Amino acid sequence: MFIDRQRRYSMTNDQRLRHLDNASYIKGILTQTFLFSHMDEDVLNAFSSSSSIKHVKKGHVLFISEEEASCFYVIKNGWIKLFRESLDGNEAVVDVLNKNHIFGDTSMFENDTYPYSAEVVEDAELVMIPIAMLKKQIERHAPLSLKMLHAMSRFRKQQDIELEHRDLQNAPQRIGCFLLRLCKQNAEGPILLQLPYDKTLLAARLGMKPETFSRALARLRNETGIVINGSNIELKNIEQLSSYSCSACSSTYPCQDLH
Amino acid sequence: MFIDRQRRYSMTNDQRLRHLDNASYIKGILTQTFLFSHMDEDVLNAFSSSSSIKHVKKGHVLFISEEEASCFYVIKNGWIKLFRESLDGNEAVVDVLNKNHIFGDTSMFENDTYPYSAEVVEDAELVMIPIAMLKKQIERHAPLSLKMLHAMSRFRKQQDIELEHRDLQNAPQRIGCFLLRLCKQNAEGPILLQLPYDKTLLAARLGMKPETFSRALARLRNETGIVINGSNIELKNIEQLSSYSCSACSSTYPCQDLH
Repeated sequence: MFIDRQRRYSMTNDQRLRHLDNASYIKGILTQTFLFSHMDEDVLNAFSSSSSIKHVKKGHVLFISEEEASCFYVIKNGWIKLFRESLDGNEAVVDVLNKNHIFGDTSMFENDTYPYSAEVVEDAELVMIPIAMLKKQIERHAPLSLKMLHAMSRFRKQQDIELEHRDLQNAPQRIGCFLLRLCKQNAEGPILLQLPYDKTLLAARLGMKPETFSRALARLRNETGIVINGSNIELKNIEQLSSYSCSACSSTYPCQDLH
Repeated sequence: MFIDRQRRYSMTNDQRLRHLDNASYIKGILTQTFLFSHMDEDVLNAFSSSSSIKHVKKGHVLFISEEEASCFYVIKNGWIKLFRESLDGNEAVVDVLNKNHIFGDTSMFENDTYPYSAEVVEDAELVMIPIAMLKKQIERHAPLSLKMLHAMSRFRKQQDIELEHRDLQNAPQRIGCFLLRLCKQNAEGPILLQLPYDKTLLAARLGMKPETFSRALARLRNETGIVINGSNIELKNIEQLSSYSCSACSSTYPCQDLH
């Protein structure tokens, strides 16, 4: 347990119970992530009792690039946009993440500054974890470093594939691939999807101009027969999209490494 | 030392000396890489005495994607192309690496299979290191895991910036950025460069069709005034390119994280 001694002594019984409740709630969230799954109980306890919950509204900027970093985040729900700005003022979307994803963790290798900015794009519930705790546990606990290396390696492969798609897939295929990632892997029969955030951001996430995105979405509908109604999308089955998008990709569906 | 006991006993004095010479030669190569720099002497010895040197010719395929992986590689010199093939037979270039770069290491997180194929594009000298040794040392030696995490985090940032460039930089700016990476950081006065490998591969590395690459190179010359003569390129100074390319990027020149 990482509550400091003085604080522990000054807590009332009620406070102590609330703290324990909170820690076990946080532990439940952490174990859903790849990094903390199957982790030793004492490591999990150390992390969850030193972390806190944060509720944030759409539009809130959590931190900006190169700002000093003391915490990293786990997403319980909501959507977070990671982005950077070029010198001439344009924005590049690094990623848009949702539940069970972690961000801000690599700041520990950037002299404790964030390597990107983070903005809430749909109301979110987050776990805030001190970077200091991550450093301490990595130094002490070899399985945690291995797990973190594994997580980074998965991420690296995702980025490889993302770069590959920019070369080999056309715009409608890239949208198809994004939609497939929203489906449950191995789902059978008809599927109803909803675009998770607005189309302008989705276009930026996929490296397209908004007008390219609209044209490509129309072409995807015409070529695959999926039904689009505002932000609702209806597929007859997975194959309706996977046969169209996955031919121009080196991974086979269902994808092992894509979130 | 990781020569097995039986082998050590059966060595003549000459063989033993050659083995020690070889190990110290390899150690010299390893310490040039980010991963092994400032590493404990005993860890370095373990790696270098279990590794071997491999000379490979242009065109040689070292391994193909999903093949079983027993070794990873450090490049002493030459150029290596990492690539993947899509189901419909197109090739995506993941990266083209040169000296002091490491590849094949993440296979330890891919059930010991390579996540990409590797082909020699300019004659190369490589150090082959057993994956088993990497696993063993990471489990035993916390600073090595931290270093590897740091290396992965640098790589992740490079890929972020690569993806960013596909969105924000036009094709001539991307070629300019590639050329800047070939220059010594903080170089002063005129600079002579040579394209390190053929233009078709260079186009693929930058995610362009060969004809787009040629047009973009001509435009880069017209807009910056650099002199291009076959594969030789002459700059008056760094600013001639950096002022043109770096305005559309979130990093400031000299770049900290690009190879």
